[in-house]
Amino acid sequence: MGMTTVFFLTAALPQLARAGDPLPSWNEVASKKAIVAFVSGVTKEGSSTYVAPEDRIATFDNDGTLWVEKPLYTHLLGVFQRMKAQMAADPSLKDREPYRAVAANDMSYFMNLYEDAAFATIVSQLMGVPFGGMTSEQYDAWGREFLSEFKHPKLKVGVEGLIYKPMIELIRYLEQNDFTVYIFTADEGAFLRLAATNLYGLPPSQVLGTSIRSEWVVENEKPLLVRTYRMQHLNNWDGKPRLIQQVIGKRPIFAAGNSNGDQHMLQYAALSGGMSVLVHHTDDKREFAYTSHTDKVMPLAQKEGWTVIDMKRDWKAIFPGR
Amino acid sequence: MGMTTVFFLTAALPQLARAGDPLPSWNEVASKKAIVAFVSGVTKEGSSTYVAPEDRIATFDNDGTLWVEKPLYTHLLGVFQRMKAQMAADPSLKDREPYRAVAANDMSYFMNLYEDAAFATIVSQLMGVPFGGMTSEQYDAWGREFLSEFKHPKLKVGVEGLIYKPMIELIRYLEQNDFTVYIFTADEGAFLRLAATNLYGLPPSQVLGTSIRSEWVVENEKPLLVRTYRMQHLNNWDGKPRLIQQVIGKRPIFAAGNSNGDQHMLQYAALSGGMSVLVHHTDDKREFAYTSHTDKVMPLAQKEGWTVIDMKRDWKAIFPGR
Repeated sequence: MGMTTVFFLTAALPQLARAGDPLPSWNEVASKKAIVAFVSGVTKEGSSTYVAPEDRIATFDNDGTLWVEKPLYTHLLGVFQRMKAQMAADPSLKDREPYRAVAANDMSYFMNLYEDAAFATIVSQLMGVPFGGMTSEQYDAWGREFLSEFKHPKLKVGVEGLIYKPMIELIRYLEQNDFTVYIFTADEGAFLRLAATNLYGLPPSQVLGTSIRSEWVVENEKPLLVRTYRMQHLNNWDGKPRLIQQVIGKRPIFAAGNSNGDQHMLQYAALSGGMSVLVHHTDDKREFAYTSHTDKVMPLAQKEGWTVIDMKRDWKAIFPGR
Repeated sequence: MGMTTVFFLTAALPQLARAGDPLPSWNEVASKKAIVAFVSGVTKEGSSTYVAPEDRIATFDNDGTLWVEKPLYTHLLGVFQRMKAQMAADPSLKDREPYRAVAANDMSYFMNLYEDAAFATIVSQLMGVPFGGMTSEQYDAWGREFLSEFKHPKLKVGVEGLIYKPMIELIRYLEQNDFTVYIFTADEGAFLRLAATNLYGLPPSQVLGTSIRSEWVVENEKPLLVRTYRMQHLNNWDGKPRLIQQVIGKRPIFAAGNSNGDQHMLQYAALSGGMSVLVHHTDDKREFAYTSHTDKVMPLAQKEGWTVIDMKRDWKAIFPGR
């Protein structure tokens, strides 16, 4: 092919892709139709629903929205694995929290903190303490190793087998329609970023989460950011729209979540004239069926007209390749 | 022209632009040559200096680096203007700080806080208090009105007349070479974002700064972020690399600044193998000549091999159109 032909084909590709079914893993259900209608509306120039490309911001939760969160958040499994390795090297760690609770498998310790709304303590003890003093590069090296070796305790797959194929198609579909897609997770952002480029095709700057305060140190002419024990930002509940405002500076016109922690982000899009979707875990055969942490969002979905995705009913396939 | 020809020309444009002088407002000086050599190095595939496009991150300071900061930061002029309007409506405000100091033009009050390193108080009193209780939209409306009416006290131009033409050329040159360009300012990010799209062609998500904590409120079915008085992040000194890490998740390979507040960001790029440039204000005829707040960065520039831009010597033109 000559150069001109190559340019022509490359430029035309997104247009051609749009002609096919952009969401092949979805059944022809109301949720799929609503998503396609919404995207058609915001991209139709001259219509009252049109939104300029630079304002097409989409924000996704991760755990339970883009990948499996049962029986426990993957991030937390990594934290516990590290704490156990630390205790194996230094058994005296078990004398104090949070190591005692993890060693004794005493989740009531963390649940009590949760009930007391002591979130800064939980974040500090689980995301701060086990990694305190590490540089950002040392943390990344730990995270990459954990992710590369991870096997899901029940599904027996690595992280690449935990992602929801229909949601990946949705991300690509939005991108093809000039959306900028972000993840806002309650996991530590620094952790999920290590997986997000490969799994979701999203660069670190589009993956934001809970964060730990780091301190600046220049050591042997090397600039380092060294992790402390202190929570900087909790990216759950109202923390999600607050971080969206700080980092993006625009309201999302599309948001996706699955649990109470996403309620404010979902309201942010839905009540600003955008579309919000709620992934509902209904498939106990192919994934996990549960309603925990959804008592706030289910009534809001009804009241505010969010689109509920019933995994069992709406998705032809859940995971890539199986 | 047929469709094929249009696609061909559009795709070829950046290539054609690169063939000309990308920095026409610069004299043929060492700083310009060093910048061009650096960009050529990181974009040359197969070379040892090559950097993949997704890692070509550039971070710029704003005040004194991209626009005039004398006699006072534009942002601060806006804050004082608002505080004076508030005192005109309610003279009792003058009984308390920070209004008393502004009413009495007593800058020693703020300088004493600065000497005491009471930065959270300064940020709270100047960025928080005068705008407390406003929604993000109300703040934006205030900022847009201020910016549209602003005239520089000495130069008698609006903000569009304060920007440095050679630096805008530099931003475009970096973008043409697949850099992603961010501004990291000590101003409030929410303020500078209102000007940055028009002035610099940078979207809000690429303009980060100091921030005030907002609270989430749903009022009459409208989701609002309401400003408090509390500092959330001070984007100066080590706050710049810390926010770069949080928001971008990569080290910049190019950084530009002009004063002590930029030292950590400039070290972050320079000591990580990247290039840092320091704008030195030497032109008392066309701009302002001063060395204040540069006692830390001038020696570091020498020691760490940053490139110093001498405005008088290096720039043919300083401002667009004059």
